[in-house]
Amino acid sequence: MTEIKILKIGGSVLTDKTRFESARMVEIERIASEISKYGSGLILVHGAGSFGHIHAKKYNFTERFSAEGVLKTHRSVVRLNDLVVESLRKAGSGPVPVHPLSCTLLRDGRIDLMQIEPVIEMVNRGLVPVLHGDVAMDRSKGAGIVSGDQLVSHLARSLKPKIVALGTAVDGVIFRGEVLSVVKREDLFKIGSELGASAGVDVTGGMRGKLEELLDLADQGVSSTIFNAEKAGMIERVLGGERAGTLVEGKT
Amino acid sequence: MTEIKILKIGGSVLTDKTRFESARMVEIERIASEISKYGSGLILVHGAGSFGHIHAKKYNFTERFSAEGVLKTHRSVVRLNDLVVESLRKAGSGPVPVHPLSCTLLRDGRIDLMQIEPVIEMVNRGLVPVLHGDVAMDRSKGAGIVSGDQLVSHLARSLKPKIVALGTAVDGVIFRGEVLSVVKREDLFKIGSELGASAGVDVTGGMRGKLEELLDLADQGVSSTIFNAEKAGMIERVLGGERAGTLVEGKT
Repeated sequence: MTEIKILKIGGSVLTDKTRFESARMVEIERIASEISKYGSGLILVHGAGSFGHIHAKKYNFTERFSAEGVLKTHRSVVRLNDLVVESLRKAGSGPVPVHPLSCTLLRDGRIDLMQIEPVIEMVNRGLVPVLHGDVAMDRSKGAGIVSGDQLVSHLARSLKPKIVALGTAVDGVIFRGEVLSVVKREDLFKIGSELGASAGVDVTGGMRGKLEELLDLADQGVSSTIFNAEKAGMIERVLGGERAGTLVEGKT
Repeated sequence: MTEIKILKIGGSVLTDKTRFESARMVEIERIASEISKYGSGLILVHGAGSFGHIHAKKYNFTERFSAEGVLKTHRSVVRLNDLVVESLRKAGSGPVPVHPLSCTLLRDGRIDLMQIEPVIEMVNRGLVPVLHGDVAMDRSKGAGIVSGDQLVSHLARSLKPKIVALGTAVDGVIFRGEVLSVVKREDLFKIGSELGASAGVDVTGGMRGKLEELLDLADQGVSSTIFNAEKAGMIERVLGGERAGTLVEGKT
């Protein structure tokens, strides 16, 4: 079996989160080019940015179920996913879209079931599965939002990859102006209240939500790295195992 | 739990199978309108017609794995799925696309794993999941084609719905110029060799492939109906439990 690495690229890197459905094509193409140089074994997850969050906020799935909201939110994030997949294809990767709405069921906003075997088969055959933050059905609420971060955490929990890297528009977890090189569970209480939200609309909790997701993962023994994906060359370095940004350290 | 009915509409109804990616929009809209009158409890599966089969034939997944073939074939059938979903939305249904590539894993061309719980949740919430013939990952061959008929058979086996209806461009199973009102397992040997292939390119075996799929289902005790979906009003009648076309009769 191929050694798996999970890379997430945040919606704030791929889109302008302050403007509705605004893809940053130059960034998407640069990232696609960096990924295509990297080779095999990669699962890519991307955020929804200004494609999903604005619909998700409007339809507010935690309050009420909406058939229209499910379709519109899903279609919006799929438009971004199409752009990412097409850029990867042009750059020479073998991307395949994987839509959480088709393969995931939530309960109270958390992944209850997810079919990951097709994703594993894709990686083993040299493809790059490209998942994304999405709307998904929810046993308790009808529908809900599954963030890219939650997908990363769920996949990493099952697959125990050596590298779990989350590319954002900042250098890592920033606390009082400094990038923390390591964050552990016991730090959250201290730093949590001071973490800023991300720019623009984000229904999934910004950096605090991300950190909670990754600390849950760390509790399972899987460390992850939050790094700045806007800096050229960082993806390759982080996937190569180099220390950068913030390490969310798992119990050893 | 909502009572579930499974309706499949063949690719030869929705597309011109002799012309590459040629959707019959008038038919798609008529069928969407008929379905939207029907109400809840429905799972819709559609064939790929001239959207999937031509790519699938070109890339010949049973012979060799092709990353490009997986993406191109999938994108092609998704284009048809988008048209069907959009027509249903305009007609007033609550459609949601469900892509087999995201949720299904084959072994030697047969469904080995499929996540159907999200589909059940969709139906229970009043949505109409819209699945389609697709390319899917295959444990033995890398990738393969999962036909709409196989999806129907798999779903029906798990869900044991009262109505399983397959709309085609013909009146049913035709043997020596006559529509057979009932077909059972023991009839296949007699009629099988005389069944015609469907018009245009079909990689999934035409009427013979369909019948083999439905006889497997009948062996599990689930009967199904093959009817002519080009005739206006037939969908409603068949979903209402009326006898039409050919009944592929399950053991009782």
